[in-house]
Amino acid sequence: MPGTLYLLPTQLGESDWHAVLPTATQAAACRLTHFIAENAKTARASLKWLGHPVPLREIAIEQLPEPLQPADIERLLQPLHDGLDVGLMSEAGCPGVADPGALLVRRAHESGIAVRPLVGPSSLLLALMASGLDGQRFAFHGYLPPRDPERGRRIVELEKESRQKSQTQIFIETPYRNEALFDALLTTCAPRTLLCLASDLSTAGETVATRRIEDWRRAPRPALDRRPTVFLLLSAR
Amino acid sequence: MPGTLYLLPTQLGESDWHAVLPTATQAAACRLTHFIAENAKTARASLKWLGHPVPLREIAIEQLPEPLQPADIERLLQPLHDGLDVGLMSEAGCPGVADPGALLVRRAHESGIAVRPLVGPSSLLLALMASGLDGQRFAFHGYLPPRDPERGRRIVELEKESRQKSQTQIFIETPYRNEALFDALLTTCAPRTLLCLASDLSTAGETVATRRIEDWRRAPRPALDRRPTVFLLLSAR
Repeated sequence: MPGTLYLLPTQLGESDWHAVLPTATQAAACRLTHFIAENAKTARASLKWLGHPVPLREIAIEQLPEPLQPADIERLLQPLHDGLDVGLMSEAGCPGVADPGALLVRRAHESGIAVRPLVGPSSLLLALMASGLDGQRFAFHGYLPPRDPERGRRIVELEKESRQKSQTQIFIETPYRNEALFDALLTTCAPRTLLCLASDLSTAGETVATRRIEDWRRAPRPALDRRPTVFLLLSAR
Repeated sequence: MPGTLYLLPTQLGESDWHAVLPTATQAAACRLTHFIAENAKTARASLKWLGHPVPLREIAIEQLPEPLQPADIERLLQPLHDGLDVGLMSEAGCPGVADPGALLVRRAHESGIAVRPLVGPSSLLLALMASGLDGQRFAFHGYLPPRDPERGRRIVELEKESRQKSQTQIFIETPYRNEALFDALLTTCAPRTLLCLASDLSTAGETVATRRIEDWRRAPRPALDRRPTVFLLLSAR
Protein backbone atom coordinates (compact mmCIF):
# COMPACT_ATOMS: atom_id res chain seq x y z
CA MET A 1 0.00 0.00 0.00
CA PRO A 2 1.38 3.45 -0.89
CA GLY A 3 1.43 6.12 1.81
CA THR A 4 -0.85 9.17 1.98
CA LEU A 5 0.19 12.65 0.91
CA TYR A 6 -0.98 15.10 3.60
CA LEU A 7 -1.37 18.73 2.59
CA LEU A 8 -0.30 20.65 5.64
CA PRO A 9 -1.07 24.36 6.04
CA THR A 10 1.35 26.46 8.07
CA GLN A 11 1.33 29.84 9.82
CA LEU A 12 0.94 33.07 7.85
CA GLY A 13 2.91 35.12 10.36
CA GLU A 14 3.46 35.35 14.10
CA SER A 15 0.71 33.39 15.82
CA ASP A 16 0.30 30.48 18.15
CA TRP A 17 -0.64 27.26 16.29
CA HIS A 18 -3.83 26.99 18.38
CA ALA A 19 -4.96 30.23 16.76
CA VAL A 20 -4.77 28.98 13.16
CA LEU A 21 -4.66 25.16 13.07
CA PRO A 22 -7.18 22.56 14.25
CA THR A 23 -5.74 20.09 16.76
CA ALA A 24 -6.23 17.38 14.11
CA THR A 25 -3.94 19.22 11.66
CA GLN A 26 -1.23 19.67 14.29
CA ALA A 27 -1.56 16.02 15.37
CA ALA A 28 -1.35 14.76 11.77
CA ALA A 29 1.82 16.80 11.23
CA CYS A 30 3.36 15.49 14.43
CA ARG A 31 2.86 11.87 13.32
CA LEU A 32 4.88 12.43 10.13
CA THR A 33 8.66 12.29 9.81
CA HIS A 34 8.92 12.91 6.04
CA PHE A 35 8.12 16.26 4.51
CA ILE A 36 8.34 17.97 1.15
CA ALA A 37 8.54 21.74 1.45
CA GLU A 38 8.59 24.81 -0.73
CA ASN A 39 11.38 26.07 1.54
CA ALA A 40 13.26 23.68 3.86
CA LYS A 41 14.29 26.44 6.27
CA THR A 42 10.78 27.74 6.88
CA ALA A 43 9.54 24.13 7.07
CA ARG A 44 11.95 23.49 9.95
CA ALA A 45 10.68 26.62 11.66
CA SER A 46 7.09 25.42 11.16
CA LEU A 47 7.84 22.02 12.71
CA LYS A 48 9.35 23.73 15.72
CA TRP A 49 6.33 26.05 15.94
CA LEU A 50 4.05 22.96 15.84
CA GLY A 51 5.96 21.38 18.72
CA HIS A 52 6.87 18.34 16.61
CA PRO A 53 8.02 15.68 19.12
CA VAL A 54 10.85 14.22 16.97
CA PRO A 55 14.26 15.98 16.93
CA LEU A 56 14.66 17.95 13.69
CA ARG A 57 17.81 16.03 12.68
CA GLU A 58 15.73 12.83 12.55
CA ILE A 59 13.13 14.37 10.23
CA ALA A 60 13.54 14.23 6.46
CA ILE A 61 12.69 17.49 4.70
CA GLU A 62 13.05 17.59 0.92
CA GLN A 63 12.89 21.00 -0.72
CA LEU A 64 10.88 21.37 -3.94
CA PRO A 65 13.42 22.15 -6.69
CA GLU A 66 12.62 25.13 -8.86
CA PRO A 67 11.76 24.58 -11.66
CA LEU A 68 10.27 21.22 -10.75
CA GLN A 69 11.25 18.53 -13.32
CA PRO A 70 9.41 15.23 -13.88
CA ALA A 71 12.42 13.29 -12.48
CA ASP A 72 12.30 15.39 -9.29
CA ILE A 73 8.64 14.59 -8.83
CA GLU A 74 9.25 10.85 -9.16
CA ARG A 75 12.09 11.04 -6.67
CA LEU A 76 10.03 13.05 -4.18
CA LEU A 77 7.06 10.65 -4.43
CA GLN A 78 9.23 7.51 -4.00
CA PRO A 79 8.86 7.36 -0.18
CA LEU A 80 5.06 7.36 -0.69
CA HIS A 81 5.37 4.41 -3.10
CA ASP A 82 7.45 2.73 -0.40
CA GLY A 83 4.51 3.06 1.99
CA LEU A 84 5.48 6.17 3.99
CA ASP A 85 3.07 9.00 4.75
CA VAL A 86 4.50 12.38 3.67
CA GLY A 87 3.50 15.98 4.46
CA LEU A 88 3.61 18.74 1.84
CA MET A 89 4.21 22.25 3.22
CA SER A 90 4.07 25.66 1.64
CA GLU A 91 6.22 28.56 2.82
CA ALA A 92 3.10 30.04 4.40
CA GLY A 93 -0.55 29.08 4.28
CA CYS A 94 -1.97 26.24 2.18
CA PRO A 95 0.20 24.06 -0.08
CA GLY A 96 -0.86 24.06 -3.72
CA VAL A 97 -2.56 27.47 -3.43
CA ALA A 98 -0.46 30.33 -4.83
CA ASP A 99 2.63 28.08 -4.58
CA PRO A 100 4.44 25.51 -6.78
CA GLY A 101 3.37 22.29 -4.98
CA ALA A 102 0.33 21.57 -7.16
CA LEU A 103 2.27 19.60 -9.81
CA LEU A 104 3.40 17.13 -7.17
CA VAL A 105 -0.18 16.65 -5.98
CA ARG A 106 -1.37 16.12 -9.56
CA ARG A 107 1.26 13.43 -10.12
CA ALA A 108 0.27 11.78 -6.81
CA HIS A 109 -3.30 11.41 -8.14
CA GLU A 110 -1.96 9.89 -11.38
CA SER A 111 0.05 7.30 -9.49
CA GLY A 112 -2.75 6.24 -7.16
CA ILE A 113 -1.48 7.98 -4.02
CA ALA A 114 -4.24 9.19 -1.69
CA VAL A 115 -4.19 12.94 -1.03
CA ARG A 116 -5.62 14.42 2.20
CA PRO A 117 -6.00 18.18 2.55
CA LEU A 118 -5.85 19.45 6.14
CA VAL A 119 -7.59 22.58 7.40
CA GLY A 120 -5.51 25.68 8.12
CA PRO A 121 -5.10 29.36 7.31
CA SER A 122 -5.16 30.77 3.78
CA SER A 123 -4.55 34.48 3.41
CA LEU A 124 -6.60 34.54 0.19
CA LEU A 125 -9.62 32.94 1.81
CA LEU A 126 -9.44 34.99 5.03
CA ALA A 127 -9.13 38.14 2.92
CA LEU A 128 -12.12 37.20 0.76
CA MET A 129 -14.30 36.45 3.83
CA ALA A 130 -13.31 39.66 5.55
CA SER A 131 -13.53 41.92 2.49
CA GLY A 132 -17.31 41.90 2.15
CA LEU A 133 -16.80 41.74 -1.62
CA ASP A 134 -18.61 39.18 -3.79
CA GLY A 135 -17.80 35.69 -2.54
CA GLN A 136 -20.14 33.98 -4.99
CA ARG A 137 -17.86 34.75 -7.95
CA PHE A 138 -14.16 35.46 -7.50
CA ALA A 139 -10.80 34.89 -9.17
CA PHE A 140 -7.21 34.81 -7.96
CA HIS A 141 -4.65 36.22 -10.39
CA GLY A 142 -1.35 35.90 -8.50
CA TYR A 143 1.06 38.81 -9.05
CA LEU A 144 0.36 41.71 -11.39
CA PRO A 145 3.16 42.98 -13.67
CA PRO A 146 5.60 44.93 -11.44
CA ARG A 147 5.89 48.05 -13.62
CA ASP A 148 3.86 50.51 -15.65
CA PRO A 149 2.53 50.65 -18.33
CA GLU A 150 1.93 46.84 -18.10
CA ARG A 151 0.66 47.09 -14.52
CA GLY A 152 -1.80 49.86 -15.34
CA ARG A 153 -3.08 47.95 -18.37
CA ARG A 154 -3.59 44.83 -16.27
CA ILE A 155 -5.54 46.78 -13.62
CA VAL A 156 -7.83 48.19 -16.33
CA GLU A 157 -8.37 44.66 -17.66
CA LEU A 158 -9.18 43.24 -14.21
CA GLU A 159 -11.57 46.06 -13.39
CA LYS A 160 -13.39 45.61 -16.69
CA GLU A 161 -13.70 41.85 -16.19
CA SER A 162 -14.93 42.46 -12.63
CA ARG A 163 -17.68 44.73 -13.97
CA GLN A 164 -18.73 42.34 -16.72
CA LYS A 165 -18.84 39.24 -14.51
CA SER A 166 -19.58 40.75 -11.06
CA GLN A 167 -16.41 38.96 -10.03
CA THR A 168 -14.15 39.84 -7.10
CA GLN A 169 -10.54 40.06 -8.33
CA ILE A 170 -7.86 38.91 -5.87
CA PHE A 171 -4.14 39.55 -6.33
CA ILE A 172 -0.93 39.90 -4.34
CA GLU A 173 2.35 41.78 -4.56
CA THR A 174 5.85 41.42 -3.17
CA PRO A 175 5.47 43.30 0.16
CA TYR A 176 8.03 46.02 -0.64
CA ARG A 177 6.04 46.92 -3.77
CA ASN A 178 2.63 47.11 -2.04
CA GLU A 179 2.63 50.91 -1.88
CA ALA A 180 3.41 51.26 -5.58
CA LEU A 181 0.56 48.89 -6.41
CA PHE A 182 -1.81 50.82 -4.13
CA ASP A 183 -0.86 54.09 -5.90
CA ALA A 184 -1.41 52.48 -9.29
CA LEU A 185 -4.88 51.27 -8.21
CA LEU A 186 -5.83 54.75 -6.94
CA THR A 187 -4.70 56.35 -10.19
CA THR A 188 -6.24 53.78 -12.50
CA CYS A 189 -9.56 52.57 -11.07
CA ALA A 190 -12.97 54.19 -11.31
CA PRO A 191 -14.03 56.26 -8.25
CA ARG A 192 -16.86 53.84 -7.29
CA THR A 193 -14.77 50.64 -7.52
CA LEU A 194 -14.40 48.85 -4.18
CA LEU A 195 -10.88 48.05 -3.00
CA CYS A 196 -10.07 45.89 0.03
CA LEU A 197 -6.62 45.76 1.62
CA ALA A 198 -6.10 42.82 3.99
CA SER A 199 -2.71 42.84 5.76
CA ASP A 200 -0.94 40.62 8.30
CA LEU A 201 -3.91 38.25 8.42
CA SER A 202 -4.23 35.93 11.42
CA THR A 203 -1.58 37.86 13.37
CA ALA A 204 -1.87 40.44 16.15
CA GLY A 205 -1.31 43.21 13.59
CA GLU A 206 -4.14 42.14 11.25
CA THR A 207 -5.98 44.93 9.45
CA VAL A 208 -8.74 44.68 6.87
CA ALA A 209 -10.37 47.69 5.25
CA THR A 210 -12.76 47.97 2.29
CA ARG A 211 -13.51 51.36 0.73
CA ARG A 212 -14.40 52.83 -2.62
CA ILE A 213 -11.43 54.19 -4.60
CA GLU A 214 -12.77 57.76 -4.12
CA ASP A 215 -12.75 57.22 -0.33
CA TRP A 216 -9.25 55.69 -0.32
CA ARG A 217 -8.08 58.81 -2.18
CA ARG A 218 -9.35 60.98 0.70
CA ALA A 219 -8.45 58.63 3.58
CA PRO A 220 -5.16 58.68 5.52
CA ARG A 221 -2.60 56.62 3.60
CA PRO A 222 -2.69 52.98 4.83
CA ALA A 223 0.54 51.40 6.15
CA LEU A 224 1.36 48.69 3.60
CA ASP A 225 5.13 48.70 3.24
CA ARG A 226 6.62 45.25 3.85
CA ARG A 227 3.33 43.92 5.29
CA PRO A 228 2.02 40.77 3.54
CA THR A 229 -1.16 42.08 1.92
CA VAL A 230 -3.95 40.66 -0.19
CA PHE A 231 -5.60 43.11 -2.63
CA LEU A 232 -9.24 42.60 -3.63
CA LEU A 233 -11.16 44.66 -6.14
CA LEU A 234 -14.84 44.71 -7.16
CA SER A 235 -16.16 47.05 -9.79
CA ALA A 236 -19.37 48.91 -8.92
CA ARG A 237 -22.25 48.15 -11.24
CA MET B 1 -16.99 51.71 20.87
CA PRO B 2 -18.82 49.48 18.38
CA GLY B 3 -18.44 45.69 18.74
CA THR B 4 -16.47 43.41 16.41
CA LEU B 5 -18.03 41.27 13.69
CA TYR B 6 -16.46 37.80 13.88
CA LEU B 7 -16.65 35.65 10.75
CA LEU B 8 -17.11 32.16 12.10
CA PRO B 9 -16.58 29.09 9.87
CA THR B 10 -18.63 25.99 10.67
CA GLN B 11 -18.48 22.26 9.86
CA LEU B 12 -18.85 21.03 6.26
CA GLY B 13 -20.34 17.70 7.34
CA GLU B 14 -19.99 15.13 10.10
CA SER B 15 -16.75 15.84 11.93
CA ASP B 16 -15.52 16.67 15.38
CA TRP B 17 -14.78 20.40 15.79
CA HIS B 18 -11.18 19.58 16.74
CA ALA B 19 -10.76 18.20 13.22
CA VAL B 20 -11.70 21.39 11.39
CA LEU B 21 -11.50 24.39 13.74
CA PRO B 22 -8.56 25.90 15.63
CA THR B 23 -9.14 26.12 19.38
CA ALA B 24 -9.07 29.92 18.99
CA THR B 25 -12.03 29.83 16.58
CA GLN B 26 -14.06 27.60 18.90
CA ALA B 27 -13.17 29.78 21.88
CA ALA B 28 -14.13 32.99 20.05
CA ALA B 29 -17.50 31.47 19.14
CA CYS B 30 -18.10 30.35 22.73
CA ARG B 31 -17.55 33.91 24.03
CA LEU B 32 -20.34 35.30 21.81
CA THR B 33 -24.05 35.27 22.57
CA HIS B 34 -25.26 37.13 19.45
CA PHE B 35 -25.14 35.54 16.01
CA ILE B 36 -26.31 36.30 12.50
CA ALA B 37 -26.75 33.16 10.42
CA GLU B 38 -27.59 32.14 6.87
CA ASN B 39 -29.88 29.50 8.47
CA ALA B 40 -30.92 29.74 12.14
CA LYS B 41 -31.56 26.01 12.47
CA THR B 42 -28.13 24.89 11.25
CA ALA B 43 -26.59 27.70 13.34
CA ARG B 44 -28.16 26.22 16.49
CA ALA B 45 -26.80 22.80 15.48
CA SER B 46 -23.34 24.36 15.00
CA LEU B 47 -23.40 25.98 18.45
CA LYS B 48 -24.29 22.62 19.99
CA TRP B 49 -21.51 20.96 17.97
CA LEU B 50 -19.07 23.60 19.26
CA GLY B 51 -20.08 22.88 22.84
CA HIS B 52 -21.21 26.48 23.41
CA PRO B 53 -21.48 26.89 27.21
CA VAL B 54 -24.60 29.11 27.21
CA PRO B 55 -28.07 27.50 26.90
CA LEU B 56 -29.41 27.96 23.36
CA ARG B 57 -32.53 29.80 24.57
CA GLU B 58 -30.27 32.54 25.98
CA ILE B 59 -28.44 33.02 22.66
CA ALA B 60 -29.74 35.44 20.03
CA ILE B 61 -29.62 34.08 16.48
CA GLU B 62 -30.87 36.32 13.70
CA GLN B 63 -31.41 34.71 10.31
CA LEU B 64 -30.29 36.62 7.20
CA PRO B 65 -33.47 37.52 5.28
CA GLU B 66 -33.47 36.61 1.61
CA PRO B 67 -33.26 38.86 -0.33
CA LEU B 68 -31.31 41.03 2.09
CA GLN B 69 -32.64 44.63 2.09
CA PRO B 70 -30.72 47.72 3.30
CA ALA B 71 -33.12 48.08 6.27
CA ASP B 72 -32.43 44.46 7.30
CA ILE B 73 -28.70 45.12 7.26
CA GLU B 74 -29.06 48.18 9.49
CA ARG B 75 -31.22 46.23 11.94
CA LEU B 76 -28.78 43.30 12.01
CA LEU B 77 -25.79 45.58 12.59
CA GLN B 78 -27.50 47.56 15.41
CA PRO B 79 -26.20 45.31 18.25
CA LEU B 80 -22.67 45.98 16.97
CA HIS B 81 -23.28 49.73 17.08
CA ASP B 82 -24.52 49.18 20.65
CA GLY B 83 -21.12 47.68 21.51
CA LEU B 84 -21.84 43.94 21.30
CA ASP B 85 -19.58 41.47 19.50
CA VAL B 86 -21.51 39.40 16.95
CA GLY B 87 -20.66 36.20 15.04
CA LEU B 88 -21.65 35.68 11.39
CA MET B 89 -22.19 32.04 10.37
CA SER B 90 -22.73 30.39 7.03
CA GLU B 91 -24.79 27.22 6.63
CA ALA B 92 -21.51 25.35 6.12
CA GLY B 93 -17.91 26.48 5.74
CA CYS B 94 -16.81 30.12 5.62
CA PRO B 95 -19.25 33.03 5.82
CA GLY B 96 -19.11 35.39 2.87
CA VAL B 97 -17.69 32.73 0.52
CA ALA B 98 -20.31 31.20 -1.78
CA ASP B 99 -23.04 32.52 0.54
CA PRO B 100 -25.09 35.72 0.95
CA GLY B 101 -23.35 37.20 4.04
CA ALA B 102 -20.88 39.38 2.15
CA LEU B 103 -23.20 42.40 1.87
CA LEU B 104 -23.46 42.56 5.64
CA VAL B 105 -19.67 42.51 5.97
CA ARG B 106 -19.34 45.25 3.35
CA ARG B 107 -21.79 47.46 5.25
CA ALA B 108 -19.89 46.76 8.50
CA HIS B 109 -16.73 48.20 6.88
CA GLU B 110 -18.67 51.28 5.73
CA SER B 111 -19.94 51.93 9.24
CA GLY B 112 -16.58 51.55 10.97
CA ILE B 113 -17.20 48.14 12.54
CA ALA B 114 -14.07 45.97 12.84
CA VAL B 115 -14.28 42.65 11.00
CA ARG B 116 -12.28 39.62 12.15
CA PRO B 117 -12.14 36.50 9.95
CA LEU B 118 -11.54 33.27 11.88
CA VAL B 119 -9.81 30.19 10.44
CA GLY B 120 -11.89 27.15 9.54
CA PRO B 121 -12.82 24.77 6.74
CA SER B 122 -13.73 25.89 3.22
CA SER B 123 -14.73 23.17 0.77
CA LEU B 124 -13.53 25.32 -2.15
CA LEU B 125 -10.08 25.80 -0.68
CA LEU B 126 -9.65 22.19 0.49
CA ALA B 127 -10.73 21.03 -2.98
CA LEU B 128 -8.29 23.36 -4.71
CA MET B 129 -5.38 22.23 -2.50
CA ALA B 130 -6.18 18.57 -2.98
CA SER B 131 -6.89 18.75 -6.72
CA GLY B 132 -3.33 19.28 -7.87
CA LEU B 133 -4.72 21.74 -10.44
CA ASP B 134 -3.27 25.21 -10.91
CA GLY B 135 -3.46 27.10 -7.60
CA GLN B 136 -1.63 30.13 -8.93
CA ARG B 137 -4.62 31.20 -11.05
CA PHE B 138 -8.16 30.06 -10.26
CA ALA B 139 -11.75 31.24 -10.35
CA PHE B 140 -14.93 30.23 -8.54
CA HIS B 141 -18.11 30.44 -10.61
CA GLY B 142 -20.83 29.22 -8.22
CA TYR B 143 -23.54 27.10 -9.85
CA LEU B 144 -23.67 26.37 -13.58
CA PRO B 145 -27.03 26.56 -15.39
CA PRO B 146 -29.01 23.44 -14.37
CA ARG B 147 -30.10 22.34 -17.87
CA ASP B 148 -28.81 21.87 -21.38
CA PRO B 149 -28.19 23.54 -23.76
CA GLU B 150 -27.24 26.42 -21.37
CA ARG B 151 -25.17 24.11 -19.17
CA GLY B 152 -23.21 22.68 -22.12
CA ARG B 153 -22.53 26.17 -23.48
CA ARG B 154 -21.28 27.33 -20.07
CA ILE B 155 -18.92 24.33 -19.80
CA VAL B 156 -17.48 25.11 -23.26
CA GLU B 157 -16.97 28.73 -22.16
CA LEU B 158 -15.25 27.75 -18.90
CA GLU B 159 -12.98 25.26 -20.64
CA LYS B 160 -11.97 27.83 -23.25
CA GLU B 161 -11.24 30.46 -20.60
CA SER B 162 -9.23 27.88 -18.63
CA ARG B 163 -7.09 27.16 -21.70
CA GLN B 164 -6.54 30.84 -22.52
CA LYS B 165 -5.63 31.87 -18.96
CA SER B 166 -4.23 28.62 -17.51
CA GLN B 167 -6.89 29.09 -14.87
CA THR B 168 -8.45 26.39 -12.70
CA GLN B 169 -12.24 26.68 -12.88
CA ILE B 170 -14.14 25.81 -9.69
CA PHE B 171 -17.91 25.28 -9.54
CA ILE B 172 -20.57 23.48 -7.50
CA GLU B 173 -23.95 21.88 -8.06
CA THR B 174 -26.98 20.98 -5.95
CA PRO B 175 -25.98 17.48 -4.73
CA TYR B 176 -28.86 15.63 -6.41
CA ARG B 177 -27.77 17.07 -9.78
CA ASN B 178 -24.06 16.13 -9.42
CA GLU B 179 -24.36 13.09 -11.68
CA ALA B 180 -26.03 15.04 -14.47
CA LEU B 181 -23.27 17.66 -14.29
CA PHE B 182 -20.59 14.94 -14.37
CA ASP B 183 -22.20 13.41 -17.49
CA ALA B 184 -22.36 16.82 -19.16
CA LEU B 185 -18.64 17.40 -18.42
CA LEU B 186 -17.70 13.99 -19.89
CA THR B 187 -19.72 14.68 -23.01
CA THR B 188 -18.58 18.25 -23.51
CA CYS B 189 -14.93 18.59 -22.48
CA ALA B 190 -11.82 17.78 -24.50
CA PRO B 191 -10.23 14.35 -23.75
CA ARG B 192 -7.06 15.88 -22.22
CA THR B 193 -8.87 18.32 -19.90
CA LEU B 194 -8.26 17.60 -16.22
CA LEU B 195 -11.32 17.17 -13.98
CA CYS B 196 -11.18 16.90 -10.19
CA LEU B 197 -14.13 15.70 -8.09
CA ALA B 198 -13.81 16.47 -4.37
CA SER B 199 -16.67 15.06 -2.26
CA ASP B 200 -17.58 15.04 1.44
CA LEU B 201 -14.48 17.07 2.29
CA SER B 202 -13.23 17.03 5.88
CA THR B 203 -15.50 14.08 6.80
CA ALA B 204 -14.76 10.36 7.17
CA GLY B 205 -16.18 9.75 3.67
CA GLU B 206 -13.91 12.29 1.93
CA THR B 207 -12.80 11.40 -1.60
CA VAL B 208 -10.72 13.47 -4.02
CA ALA B 209 -9.79 12.28 -7.50
CA THR B 210 -8.22 14.10 -10.45
CA ARG B 211 -8.14 12.53 -13.92
CA ARG B 212 -8.22 13.54 -17.54
CA ILE B 213 -11.68 13.46 -19.13
CA GLU B 214 -10.58 10.49 -21.31
CA ASP B 215 -9.64 8.56 -18.17
CA TRP B 216 -12.89 9.44 -16.36
CA ARG B 217 -14.73 8.06 -19.43
CA ARG B 218 -13.01 4.68 -18.94
CA ALA B 219 -12.99 4.64 -15.09
CA PRO B 220 -15.72 3.12 -12.89
CA ARG B 221 -18.46 5.69 -12.42
CA PRO B 222 -17.78 7.77 -9.27
CA ALA B 223 -20.45 7.89 -6.54
CA LEU B 224 -21.62 11.52 -6.54
CA ASP B 225 -25.34 11.41 -5.90
CA ARG B 226 -26.35 13.56 -2.92
CA ARG B 227 -22.71 14.01 -1.83
CA PRO B 228 -21.59 17.65 -1.47
CA THR B 229 -19.02 17.91 -4.27
CA VAL B 230 -16.70 20.57 -5.62
CA PHE B 231 -15.91 20.33 -9.36
CA LEU B 232 -12.58 21.67 -10.66
CA LEU B 233 -11.51 21.81 -14.27
CA LEU B 234 -8.21 22.71 -15.94
CA SER B 235 -7.76 22.65 -19.67
CA ALA B 236 -4.61 20.94 -20.95
CA ARG B 237 -2.33 23.24 -22.92
